[in-house]
Amino acid sequence: MARRSRDKAPVVRDVNYRQLRNPFPVMEVFSADEIASMHETALRTLEELGMKILLPEARHMFAKGGARVDREMVYIGRDMVEAALASAPKSIECRAGAAHRDMVLELGALTFQPGAGAPHATDLKRGRRPGSARDYEELVRLTQHFDVFQMVAPLIEPQDVPTHLRHYFMTQTQLVHSDKFPFIFSRGTPQVMESFEMLSEFRGVSAAEFEATPHAYTIINTNSPRTLDVPMAQGLIDFAKHGQLSIVTPFTLMGAMAPITVAGAITLSHSEVLAALTLTQLVKPGAPVCYGTFTSNVDMKSGAPAFGTPAHFQASLAAGQLARFTGLPWRSAAGSASNSNDVQAANENQMGLWGCLMAGATVIIHSAGWLEGGLSVSYEKLITDVEVLNMIAELCGGAKAGPDEIGFAALQEVDPSGHFFATTQTMGRYNTEFYEPIVHDYANFGTWTERGAQGANERATGVWERILAEGTGPDVDAEKLAHLQAYIAKRTEAGGAPPES
Amino acid sequence: MARRSRDKAPVVRDVNYRQLRNPFPVMEVFSADEIASMHETALRTLEELGMKILLPEARHMFAKGGARVDREMVYIGRDMVEAALASAPKSIECRAGAAHRDMVLELGALTFQPGAGAPHATDLKRGRRPGSARDYEELVRLTQHFDVFQMVAPLIEPQDVPTHLRHYFMTQTQLVHSDKFPFIFSRGTPQVMESFEMLSEFRGVSAAEFEATPHAYTIINTNSPRTLDVPMAQGLIDFAKHGQLSIVTPFTLMGAMAPITVAGAITLSHSEVLAALTLTQLVKPGAPVCYGTFTSNVDMKSGAPAFGTPAHFQASLAAGQLARFTGLPWRSAAGSASNSNDVQAANENQMGLWGCLMAGATVIIHSAGWLEGGLSVSYEKLITDVEVLNMIAELCGGAKAGPDEIGFAALQEVDPSGHFFATTQTMGRYNTEFYEPIVHDYANFGTWTERGAQGANERATGVWERILAEGTGPDVDAEKLAHLQAYIAKRTEAGGAPPES
Repeated sequence: MARRSRDKAPVVRDVNYRQLRNPFPVMEVFSADEIASMHETALRTLEELGMKILLPEARHMFAKGGARVDREMVYIGRDMVEAALASAPKSIECRAGAAHRDMVLELGALTFQPGAGAPHATDLKRGRRPGSARDYEELVRLTQHFDVFQMVAPLIEPQDVPTHLRHYFMTQTQLVHSDKFPFIFSRGTPQVMESFEMLSEFRGVSAAEFEATPHAYTIINTNSPRTLDVPMAQGLIDFAKHGQLSIVTPFTLMGAMAPITVAGAITLSHSEVLAALTLTQLVKPGAPVCYGTFTSNVDMKSGAPAFGTPAHFQASLAAGQLARFTGLPWRSAAGSASNSNDVQAANENQMGLWGCLMAGATVIIHSAGWLEGGLSVSYEKLITDVEVLNMIAELCGGAKAGPDEIGFAALQEVDPSGHFFATTQTMGRYNTEFYEPIVHDYANFGTWTERGAQGANERATGVWERILAEGTGPDVDAEKLAHLQAYIAKRTEAGGAPPES
Repeated sequence: MARRSRDKAPVVRDVNYRQLRNPFPVMEVFSADEIASMHETALRTLEELGMKILLPEARHMFAKGGARVDREMVYIGRDMVEAALASAPKSIECRAGAAHRDMVLELGALTFQPGAGAPHATDLKRGRRPGSARDYEELVRLTQHFDVFQMVAPLIEPQDVPTHLRHYFMTQTQLVHSDKFPFIFSRGTPQVMESFEMLSEFRGVSAAEFEATPHAYTIINTNSPRTLDVPMAQGLIDFAKHGQLSIVTPFTLMGAMAPITVAGAITLSHSEVLAALTLTQLVKPGAPVCYGTFTSNVDMKSGAPAFGTPAHFQASLAAGQLARFTGLPWRSAAGSASNSNDVQAANENQMGLWGCLMAGATVIIHSAGWLEGGLSVSYEKLITDVEVLNMIAELCGGAKAGPDEIGFAALQEVDPSGHFFATTQTMGRYNTEFYEPIVHDYANFGTWTERGAQGANERATGVWERILAEGTGPDVDAEKLAHLQAYIAKRTEAGGAPPES
């Protein structure tokens, strides 16, 4: 076999990073009994302490489903939660703009998103600035470029686009520059419905087709502790009603808006997810919904949020155990508190990533580029983190140990203290055996110094500049684009759709 | 319980990083059948291809044990290997200079060493330079300072100390500035025996006590492929004869001195370890020996070594499977190819670390400070990597989820959208709940900018400077020190002991 491969033309390396399965063993931080106690306490929390739900329509739905409602407080019985857990789908097919980018969210699947929701963008060329339309478009294009991102995230807020028009811009940008699974903000029904309309028309699917399978997702953050505000509750309803995906993610910082313990913070987070997902199933049994968590600790001296800490890692593990308890696909998060793309930023993000990976997370958000606890997305950090994500994706592919790989023949070919550069086995594989880095540099110290002694952060600038200069993105049908632009022009003229709160 | 803890005085956080158990689930890259095939191929390699063993004394021992010897080639039967695997101890007690630093090496235990064996030292204050006595002493002191290092490594070569006196200096420095498990180079019998003598006298143990339990370790690198040179073979013999610990570590770069495949490289490495450990058991059945591996890939374009790659990660996993096959404690390695303590350096080292951790390694060498594939040890990188190691050590402690931690009472105390800063649970734990970083900074962007916008690498300078300025290290008995100094003076006058090769 080794001999035959020498005769073949060198093969270009081609590894599928688009549909990944998590190969890492699951780690548990708590016993099954402890997890059962946490679930029980979460149910008791919903029954006895209740959720404050600010949207009247949502309270009506809970009441109709059997919850006790007292002004804004909703007390949700465990029977309702159990029914919701039974009807929520355990496997969710997601339709992207191209079939090879479709994916399934379920336990065991693994997807990544870049850092999301930041008010600022930053890079070494232009510095740190409020996020703009240009930044958003560039970051969508970078997201599109790397197969290891399966979903488009709300990377930064394009603050120079008026809020009543921002959903047009963000939807158009995602559709034009990416064929990946897109994101829609839950900022009130008008924006959501217009975004659904743009998306289904651009994708060329009927309303029935659109509603049969998720074509987009939103992220629902509860206001911890125990509050669900108006746009978030409305988002849960709108997305469920139209068969689109909600990812429910309480953001629970231990010691601040959540208990100081991992067990306490995750119990609170769990109760809030259960409330939100119950609402989706009251709207439409079988509506697609992901379990989610984002729990880390604050620095108790300053109150500042920290990420990639031991407590963050353990919180991911605990959330994973509860997510598996529900059977739902689920989202966890990496990220960094660092103010620049330095060693701290790298170490925090990777530590958080391993917590998510060993927790068996289905979606890992903020996995690249996220600095300052989410106040900025760094172009360079996006690149240097993609290097890590690519390597994790490589590990998803496993390795072979058949007779060719063990290769007694290769061992036979080389004398003691010799080298394997020219063995038949090496010649057949040198072009495809190893992952080739995008920004890591293996030059020796002398060569590296001669080339300017640039760190990975500085080299990353050249990487994103090249990608943006070369151009990436799907082919866009001119007619569909014209139709989309006409739609947006018409709606803009009619006054747009302000966000609701 | 939560109520009571409020009345207590704030407790200082105290977590034992000295005796760690690996809490991470083991990951397998190959099937049991594939591992058995690799082991079988390694045995066949030793039987049919043989090892080139340059030390006549070692060849005689192999011959006496039943091996076929043809000039420098030694062909080792599987019966000899199996007998060695049966007699090698599966659990090794290691005696440090203080009882609380003793440790046991066995599968399931977890220890860390800083980067080792570098010709250069580097820091931001003094730049990159050939390793000196001062660097060695400072790095031993930094090693001593952090509990997460359980063993002293041969950090850098003190090149300003003549080679015939270097073992005096290195042994004295370790004994005076550290009470951790020390390292002795295998550079010929004279140096080794003098080091043993200094060590046993300084520790105040009889020859019999010294030989009954390892008080020091050496690292044995084969010259891959399939060569064992004179000082390495001699080291195996000397350490085994005197009951001290050999850690056998082939350094097998895939595509260079080893096959290009993970399976092939690890099969070669396995065969070399089996040969070396067989020698230790021929010398003295039951002699303490660790299985070891250091396998990564080269960049096939340049031939430069790479670390923290997917292939490195998988090689660690495969080595772990073979080590468990033998039942022996084993050593793996992290490390970085980067030329500065940048994001690449952080990401490579942490990626390699997770490979080792999920491979179930007992000793993880090069886990902090190692740059340029081992050509330099960085003071700053040592600090920033310790942050990661400390967090891993924290994870070894697990987390609790009893009624106090789940804390329904805390949830009850806080209204919807309130905060947990002042709950009884938080007040009882705010001082001890979370790991406090040594170099990571959680200040916000404004404060961080005002303070000079320093990255973690720059901040790390202040950390090591403070540690060295404040002074660390064990109390040293003046009489023992005088005795040691007199011994060294006498031996120095007598001409020292040149290394052998």
